[in-house]
Amino acid sequence: MNCLRCLVRSSVLCRGQPLAPFYALRAFTTHPQNEMVEEMEKLLTPRAQSGTNERKKKLITKTPKGTRDYSPKQMAVREKIFSLIISCFKRHGAEAIDTPVFELKENLMGQYEEEAKLIYDLKDYGGELLSLRYDLTVPFTRYLAMNNITNMKRYHIAKVYRRDEAAMNKGRYREFYQCDFDIAGQYDPMIPDSECLKIVHEILSTLQLGDFLIKISDWRILNGILEVCGVPDNKYRTICSTLDKLDKASWEDVKCEMVGEKGLAPEVADHIGKYVQLRGGLGLVEQLLQDPKLSQNKLATEGLEDIKLLFEYLTLFGITDQISFDLSLARGLDYYTGVIYEAVLLQQQNDDQEELVGVGSVAGGGRYDGLVGTFNPKRRKVPCVGLSIGIERIFYVIEQKAKASTEKVRTTETQVFVAAAQKHFLAERLMLISELWDSGIKAEMMYKKNPSFLDQLHYCEQRGIPVVAIVGEQEMEDGIVKLRDVATREEVAVPRERFVEIIRKRLEP
Amino acid sequence: MNCLRCLVRSSVLCRGQPLAPFYALRAFTTHPQNEMVEEMEKLLTPRAQSGTNERKKKLITKTPKGTRDYSPKQMAVREKIFSLIISCFKRHGAEAIDTPVFELKENLMGQYEEEAKLIYDLKDYGGELLSLRYDLTVPFTRYLAMNNITNMKRYHIAKVYRRDEAAMNKGRYREFYQCDFDIAGQYDPMIPDSECLKIVHEILSTLQLGDFLIKISDWRILNGILEVCGVPDNKYRTICSTLDKLDKASWEDVKCEMVGEKGLAPEVADHIGKYVQLRGGLGLVEQLLQDPKLSQNKLATEGLEDIKLLFEYLTLFGITDQISFDLSLARGLDYYTGVIYEAVLLQQQNDDQEELVGVGSVAGGGRYDGLVGTFNPKRRKVPCVGLSIGIERIFYVIEQKAKASTEKVRTTETQVFVAAAQKHFLAERLMLISELWDSGIKAEMMYKKNPSFLDQLHYCEQRGIPVVAIVGEQEMEDGIVKLRDVATREEVAVPRERFVEIIRKRLEP
Repeated sequence: MNCLRCLVRSSVLCRGQPLAPFYALRAFTTHPQNEMVEEMEKLLTPRAQSGTNERKKKLITKTPKGTRDYSPKQMAVREKIFSLIISCFKRHGAEAIDTPVFELKENLMGQYEEEAKLIYDLKDYGGELLSLRYDLTVPFTRYLAMNNITNMKRYHIAKVYRRDEAAMNKGRYREFYQCDFDIAGQYDPMIPDSECLKIVHEILSTLQLGDFLIKISDWRILNGILEVCGVPDNKYRTICSTLDKLDKASWEDVKCEMVGEKGLAPEVADHIGKYVQLRGGLGLVEQLLQDPKLSQNKLATEGLEDIKLLFEYLTLFGITDQISFDLSLARGLDYYTGVIYEAVLLQQQNDDQEELVGVGSVAGGGRYDGLVGTFNPKRRKVPCVGLSIGIERIFYVIEQKAKASTEKVRTTETQVFVAAAQKHFLAERLMLISELWDSGIKAEMMYKKNPSFLDQLHYCEQRGIPVVAIVGEQEMEDGIVKLRDVATREEVAVPRERFVEIIRKRLEP
Repeated sequence: MNCLRCLVRSSVLCRGQPLAPFYALRAFTTHPQNEMVEEMEKLLTPRAQSGTNERKKKLITKTPKGTRDYSPKQMAVREKIFSLIISCFKRHGAEAIDTPVFELKENLMGQYEEEAKLIYDLKDYGGELLSLRYDLTVPFTRYLAMNNITNMKRYHIAKVYRRDEAAMNKGRYREFYQCDFDIAGQYDPMIPDSECLKIVHEILSTLQLGDFLIKISDWRILNGILEVCGVPDNKYRTICSTLDKLDKASWEDVKCEMVGEKGLAPEVADHIGKYVQLRGGLGLVEQLLQDPKLSQNKLATEGLEDIKLLFEYLTLFGITDQISFDLSLARGLDYYTGVIYEAVLLQQQNDDQEELVGVGSVAGGGRYDGLVGTFNPKRRKVPCVGLSIGIERIFYVIEQKAKASTEKVRTTETQVFVAAAQKHFLAERLMLISELWDSGIKAEMMYKKNPSFLDQLHYCEQRGIPVVAIVGEQEMEDGIVKLRDVATREEVAVPRERFVEIIRKRLEP
């Protein structure tokens, strides 16, 4: 089906009060025509009242906007990816925690500014006001503060919730996984920060997504740049927000927004432009440390010295080939206080490596020293540095690759199928399969008293089950079980009383 | 701290409108005195308004009522338990799926009656009305209907949400995990049903929670009993609801509620009592098939014949020692259409095995043939049978046991700690640890330029890290790395260029 975008506008009456016109933007890349009709009918029908007479009404078979189910194939792929990522986190000595899907609303509202309008609230039941978590960082800092912990290295893989309108077909959803790794605690500069970058590097390498680049910068350098360029204090945040678009837009467009929309003087914008289009390695750091204006700025110098130290550690880790000190890096969230980083995938464009357009970053993070303190200013500050793997985007890339590949993905791990060659062998199959399960062997059988032999074989081929254990009249007479290799069709007879032991040996890697 | 229950009553003004008096019931088994004061202050303070000035206000460091974090120790235990359960599901050939945490409200409202008031709604944003999922069964049937699937064997492990007031210290929360396994499809009678019971048996056996009992019955038998006893049609549901309390209350109390509150004639109640206090095995099934009244009831007879068939299969599976045909079994949810079952843990009381009071059931399930059809009555019916493992209750039991045990639970899997014997060896440690990570070995080091040797050893002992790799002045001179066994303190020197290879061999099981 062709990609079809349909803009539907209708006023919907809700409980007797008119609402503002209701826009529904739908991408019909994957949904059939009749669902579009269903969607329109739904929009034009008065909102359903709750009550028992609803039982008879046809229920809507769709997931909420911006969310999706994971099919067994997607789960098989997801499981592999998570397993790889968790291995890496564990390799670096992280402990796991988990937190509730919702937090007290006041805990979230205090932490975000621009993002606050994207937070999902729960209905007010007269008790605590609750909101769905927006990321895993705020829950982490709440956890640290609540348990009075000053040092922790933890990972957390869980879904988070954001009520945004971004198109679904580029791997952006309202419900999506985040895989976070963070180190909390007062340590010597840049050591934990460098481990975070090593982890991003390890994960992206192991996932085999092709070449990638990790851009690094520092919030203090960016702030210093804005200061020396003459940006008014009260415009810092909004200018950073525009600068953040440099990964998708050109400098001209970004300058245009800074001057045209954000009211920045053109010469100030130009001055910024001389810095933020710079990227390089240790050489660039040295160059900027010599920069006449920046070298006079305390914050920028601090940041530059730390980036220099970071490069030393990353060199010892052997990963600097994939590191780029990139002054255009701004990042959306406003709680960063030091190093910031973002990893992007690259594609081969002729002889150059260019950023893979459209997917966005596949990992990111930075240092955020002030967050835990917001939970209790009286207690000691707990500096933190961490990273988040953009698992949904990685998932999207891998799914695209899988579609192009001919490799079959198994959704189960069944090793043996217990089949009957003739009718009336249900009891024997039940006993056989029970012995297999009791020995820890993964086995299935058909839930029919008298399944057709061909149906059973076909099921094995479909599911990729490698071995069939066959019972029938002849097998019963001879006191054997036939083991059949599904791929080669070779059969071998084994004594009934030893069949579990023989199968187990056969299945050993 | 002694167990202290505190009943707090206060009126809370919410956005200018008085609410009904607000009761807060708190169990203080685990919380210190000052948090009780905090709780009371919070109740008596006007509700906080949202806004940016909230950033300066002290944020509340607690999780929402009825929810909890999982600490690293709890995660380590949880991971083991899930791993065992998933192994079992996979052993039986199940595929995994995942669904969003919220569904369209109308999809949930149509499915539950009594339970509907416990469903968490999301705030109304003028678009789709959403609610947090209440269980994993309705999402499953929605998934089947949405994808037009008629046959599927799936497992799903995820959190569900119920807004109830049950005490938290008996393992009941508002956010809790469910581990579900279900078989959807039209098959020959009782075969998939028996596999579900086999799975419950396998899981409870493997978890080593002590002796357990799986009670089975059938919704049609229960209905038949109520019919032959003369219960009016319109009272079936409410009587079942009362009968469901038989696992916790005596027959006298239950009869009292049926007669006193539900308006049942006493002789009808007595008649019911003659049946529902019966429990046994195949013999009881045969006895009831001969019962003059029940044998005339078509529904009851159907149910009894199926339970008889089920017993045959369970015998072939070798699990009937833990099966009890128990006519008091009613189960809360009202979508069951056939076999129902519930597993409970037993404790030794003198010579008898008695049900472990207070934990409730640790697994349950049954057949529900009509649910998928509610999503689209025009399509073929998709019969389903399944089970849900009460993971939170199991978790509670295991946590109690762990508290009593002296066994230490590791929260990380780190194998090697890279340490410096003297100052100024950061660079060497970074290089060494990088080689270990690149070889897939789990390693940690201290994030200090010059950590004390004792601090580093102490860290290893605390975390249960078995091996330390030590560099220092002497080691550098001699071109070696020292490997130290943390437990025995034995040290051995290995050549620097072979240390990864040697460590890997040493760590092999």
